[in-house]
Amino acid sequence: MKAARLHAYEQPLQLDQVPEPDLQGHNDVIVRIGGAGVCRTDLHIIEGIWQNKVEVQLPYTLGHENAGWVEAVGDAVSSVREGDAVIVHPLRTCGLCAACRRGEDMYCENGQFPGINADGGFARYLRTSERALIKLAEGVNPVDVAPHADDGITAYRAARKAARLLRPGDSAVIIGVGGLGHIALQSLQVLCGARVIAVDPSPTAQQLAHELGARHVVGGDRPVEEVRELTSGGAHVVIDFVGERGAEKQAVQMLRQGGTHIVVGYGGTVEVPTIDVIFSEISVVGSLVGNYAELSELMTLNAEGRVKLHTQRYSLDDANQALDDLDHGRVRGRGVLVPS
Amino acid sequence: MKAARLHAYEQPLQLDQVPEPDLQGHNDVIVRIGGAGVCRTDLHIIEGIWQNKVEVQLPYTLGHENAGWVEAVGDAVSSVREGDAVIVHPLRTCGLCAACRRGEDMYCENGQFPGINADGGFARYLRTSERALIKLAEGVNPVDVAPHADDGITAYRAARKAARLLRPGDSAVIIGVGGLGHIALQSLQVLCGARVIAVDPSPTAQQLAHELGARHVVGGDRPVEEVRELTSGGAHVVIDFVGERGAEKQAVQMLRQGGTHIVVGYGGTVEVPTIDVIFSEISVVGSLVGNYAELSELMTLNAEGRVKLHTQRYSLDDANQALDDLDHGRVRGRGVLVPS
Amino acid sequence: MKAARLHAYEQPLQLDQVPEPDLQGHNDVIVRIGGAGVCRTDLHIIEGIWQNKVEVQLPYTLGHENAGWVEAVGDAVSSVREGDAVIVHPLRTCGLCAACRRGEDMYCENGQFPGINADGGFARYLRTSERALIKLAEGVNPVDVAPHADDGITAYRAARKAARLLRPGDSAVIIGVGGLGHIALQSLQVLCGARVIAVDPSPTAQQLAHELGARHVVGGDRPVEEVRELTSGGAHVVIDFVGERGAEKQAVQMLRQGGTHIVVGYGGTVEVPTIDVIFSEISVVGSLVGNYAELSELMTLNAEGRVKLHTQRYSLDDANQALDDLDHGRVRGRGVLVPS
Amino acid sequence: MKAARLHAYEQPLQLDQVPEPDLQGHNDVIVRIGGAGVCRTDLHIIEGIWQNKVEVQLPYTLGHENAGWVEAVGDAVSSVREGDAVIVHPLRTCGLCAACRRGEDMYCENGQFPGINADGGFARYLRTSERALIKLAEGVNPVDVAPHADDGITAYRAARKAARLLRPGDSAVIIGVGGLGHIALQSLQVLCGARVIAVDPSPTAQQLAHELGARHVVGGDRPVEEVRELTSGGAHVVIDFVGERGAEKQAVQMLRQGGTHIVVGYGGTVEVPTIDVIFSEISVVGSLVGNYAELSELMTLNAEGRVKLHTQRYSLDDANQALDDLDHGRVRGRGVLVPS
Repeated sequence: MKAARLHAYEQPLQLDQVPEPDLQGHNDVIVRIGGAGVCRTDLHIIEGIWQNKVEVQLPYTLGHENAGWVEAVGDAVSSVREGDAVIVHPLRTCGLCAACRRGEDMYCENGQFPGINADGGFARYLRTSERALIKLAEGVNPVDVAPHADDGITAYRAARKAARLLRPGDSAVIIGVGGLGHIALQSLQVLCGARVIAVDPSPTAQQLAHELGARHVVGGDRPVEEVRELTSGGAHVVIDFVGERGAEKQAVQMLRQGGTHIVVGYGGTVEVPTIDVIFSEISVVGSLVGNYAELSELMTLNAEGRVKLHTQRYSLDDANQALDDLDHGRVRGRGVLVPS
Repeated sequence: MKAARLHAYEQPLQLDQVPEPDLQGHNDVIVRIGGAGVCRTDLHIIEGIWQNKVEVQLPYTLGHENAGWVEAVGDAVSSVREGDAVIVHPLRTCGLCAACRRGEDMYCENGQFPGINADGGFARYLRTSERALIKLAEGVNPVDVAPHADDGITAYRAARKAARLLRPGDSAVIIGVGGLGHIALQSLQVLCGARVIAVDPSPTAQQLAHELGARHVVGGDRPVEEVRELTSGGAHVVIDFVGERGAEKQAVQMLRQGGTHIVVGYGGTVEVPTIDVIFSEISVVGSLVGNYAELSELMTLNAEGRVKLHTQRYSLDDANQALDDLDHGRVRGRGVLVPS
Repeated sequence: MKAARLHAYEQPLQLDQVPEPDLQGHNDVIVRIGGAGVCRTDLHIIEGIWQNKVEVQLPYTLGHENAGWVEAVGDAVSSVREGDAVIVHPLRTCGLCAACRRGEDMYCENGQFPGINADGGFARYLRTSERALIKLAEGVNPVDVAPHADDGITAYRAARKAARLLRPGDSAVIIGVGGLGHIALQSLQVLCGARVIAVDPSPTAQQLAHELGARHVVGGDRPVEEVRELTSGGAHVVIDFVGERGAEKQAVQMLRQGGTHIVVGYGGTVEVPTIDVIFSEISVVGSLVGNYAELSELMTLNAEGRVKLHTQRYSLDDANQALDDLDHGRVRGRGVLVPS
Repeated sequence: MKAARLHAYEQPLQLDQVPEPDLQGHNDVIVRIGGAGVCRTDLHIIEGIWQNKVEVQLPYTLGHENAGWVEAVGDAVSSVREGDAVIVHPLRTCGLCAACRRGEDMYCENGQFPGINADGGFARYLRTSERALIKLAEGVNPVDVAPHADDGITAYRAARKAARLLRPGDSAVIIGVGGLGHIALQSLQVLCGARVIAVDPSPTAQQLAHELGARHVVGGDRPVEEVRELTSGGAHVVIDFVGERGAEKQAVQMLRQGGTHIVVGYGGTVEVPTIDVIFSEISVVGSLVGNYAELSELMTLNAEGRVKLHTQRYSLDDANQALDDLDHGRVRGRGVLVPS
């Protein structure tokens, strides 16, 4: 089958002919890809940023936001069958370690992350395991939801962490209303009654934030001051989807006493004097992708029409074009590769 | 009356004759001081570190860890009466703002902090208000508990934040087993079933940690590595009572994935790349003194003999000696000034 | 002034001329009534049901859902001033007991409940205290929100307890879509992403539930079976606003394993074999009025237009007519008495 | 092999020769029984009480509190191997349903309960699956911990639910200091700083409660009044391990406003007027066995010597004697059957 593979860092992907994956474990499942989302993390992988964080040997197939149809199942598989439309949680988890037991899939001690440290879904077929699959609701097309597998739950998990801290009348700031931010914005409004303030310098993003119901949209060059005024002294929660170029500093400055900065975007460095951490009694909280239950909830909200996603399709053959469009801000919504 | 007052930063306190405080508001209470704890924050105040954080005019009387007996009460006071033995929560709170309503006294929008931004308890009498007072259990002597008013609840609140995150089998590290750390160590053991690892280079502190039941005591020059080994990959929670000289960096390095660094000590800077915040999904959480309910709980545990405090008495006349002893590590337990 | 007072149980109220209330405590506030809600509890008081639960001497003035304008303030009052438009939390609380300290106003050890055990708001003026008052947002008219003071927060608190247990895809049943139920329905939708099923035999109530966005409306004579089918085995939470005539039994039968029955309405008896309590691991949870913070949040949602209330005005002179209309189901929305 | 099996309700077990169980699923594990606890539920099963709650065909082998050594493993098993000493969580769970995903094993949609609805551990060998096994700490003998598999976690889960609600100074009542109650008493003291009051009419149980550190032990014929006095108005939490013969009513009467009644024992009926449920805003909460994580935590506390269990061994041949001794209160601690 055809697959878009990384042979060398900082080089375009190559479209190779590779053997189709086969069932290896009793709980393995082969998924025929309906769509595979193209994500900023793919760009970072190609740049080589993740080299030291994960072990993987080149070449391999990228693509960690996958959805499609069950093609074949191992002999111990009981919860899905051939033909089921599914979205694929990005991590293959063991189901036995302490983390899996309490639903924290991302901490699985034996996890594998196809598209990051194993062959992913920029191809016709993907090998994953039963525990990663969520059946789609009647009428949902895999290609329309694929980006939720990683982008979506990352935004949703952050929104869920925020919602637990927020009451009606409280203020939540979302820095960066892009692919993740616009999912978080919709999710927050479903999950709690707080006021949402969107911060983004791009007029298109500001327009989107307005349409999605943000109470205030902040775009000027004094976002910290504006937020502090709008919130009479600071926000209760700030979710930062940028994490670099100063956003990670502004996030902290936007907080009120007792406030929480949720870090999702990365690149920069959180740097706060301990005296300020205690004097304002703030929290800085990381958020990493999301677990299976969170993806299930997000798929429910998607099926109910309460969290919407805009996608732009590319043929698998145009993988590098899709990556380039993403890198240069030319994608409207999220790009999704469709095997040809 | 005699009072130990700060006339100039970086200068010793002066023993002045000042008028006794009088009742001003309907809910005011005058407390005859039984003991006033001498705290590292007093040293920091004298050094001038807090100048920019709080507004206060020199000269004024220090002393924010106060306990004694009710001497006089305003005409609207209903919950205490003359002669009651009491410990004084350090903040005078309004009881009307949103923060007070939900018990977060430290966020009171109208609070006053005697000994920090108003006349404190290094004197014979202190003016505070009804809402700050907790009656002592039968037989408890004010002078023996005064340091709990600030030091104690600071340690206790941090322990409580930690306990909420800890299950049996989990690991909690306490960095710094001094005045605060040894209260946190005892509190953690009362509040949860986790394993406590104490980290301190001082042999005396290590000895104390052993006596108080720490499961492991780490004192070498490779504390991060030792903790990671003892915990098979990192601690679930680290409470840092030092907050400077590298401890604030080690605290983060000691965490396992999903772990929480609770900041109490200050001086240094928390500095973590956002990619590490998310990849390890850690939290950095400030802890600021403590609220009235926490002080009540701590006084209960103190009365039950489950959290013990060692004090060393000084005459109020020797206030500067007590401060100097603290600064040079010559106090066994906590110094307390007793009006002469 | 004129006041509608109860002289004997099971008798109509009498319109008496009584002296205006005066300031007695330093924190007292006199409120000029804009509107006073007429509540089912008023009917119960007149019936004598509450005689054994609370101590009060006849005659006295009813009316515990009050809103209006500050007329006069005691000399220690700092947070409101003459002319402020306010809604009155139903309990006068002390602000000093452990319950007040943590925001659980309803458990205040020294509380007084005007309209239940002291003179209430079916009059021109009401005496309450500063801690009971919440300022209304610009443009909000007291008469339009008065019923929120008791009915509204009772519904809101129950919804809040429910929301804490509910995730997207989960099911919450509301039994009884009347004065309280329709506020709970709106509140639940603001506070969480769960699916709401409304159960009510009245076609008018069913119509209202549909308009307010309930996902399913159940009205037949087999509500338990219908709910179990709609939820594939039972609801996660059932809020029962009826509490008698069988609803209290159906509520339990509608639950799935691990589900929670929130009791708000009263009259009947909860009766469950212990073997069923454990085998299904259910919870039965009471909900009592609501605290100050909850009323603040509800007023925020009301000002934002997210929780709406329909009221029908009566002159104070028509108090007995309003009570009679309520008793016979002739009130559309909630009746509110306006002093003439 | 020999197995003690139930052929008819209300009849003694029969010691049959049956084939040894074999591996059937890829994740199956055969455990060689070291000890199998004898539990009051076994008596209830024999009496036929559970007939309507679970589906099972006679004859079958009882025994749901099992520990021993891994004898054989299926070809997909990765987390244990032959010879490992293990305790067996009572439920075989699927690991795939929503309940398993969030760690609520007891709600598994595909669970099987050996000893209740499948062949159990009153035999030389037991078939279970990988997900049910917890490795024992070095030096722990299976026969000494077997009863923790059901009795222990049932007590521990209830204690954990209680601990989440309790602060230092609060009061928790344990009704019934028998096999479960004495584990709950020890667990509560590890998990929180509340005061524990033990209620039991038996002098032996009272003696045990004293030894295990209960603050108060109540044994008279006015337990409700005594508890209300000791707690100045009622307990914050009551855990009822009896659940019949009036205990289920006393439990509710012992609560203070806002208190929680945790139901573990069964037989009687919880019966509370809805007006009391709301007026006192109490909760009645069921607790059902416990999940895998809870059993892991309990085994940690057991290995650390913080929760102790006394057992009395019987040969498997004496199964009926052990049951009879339990029924007549002749067992000191918990009976455990050891295969001969």
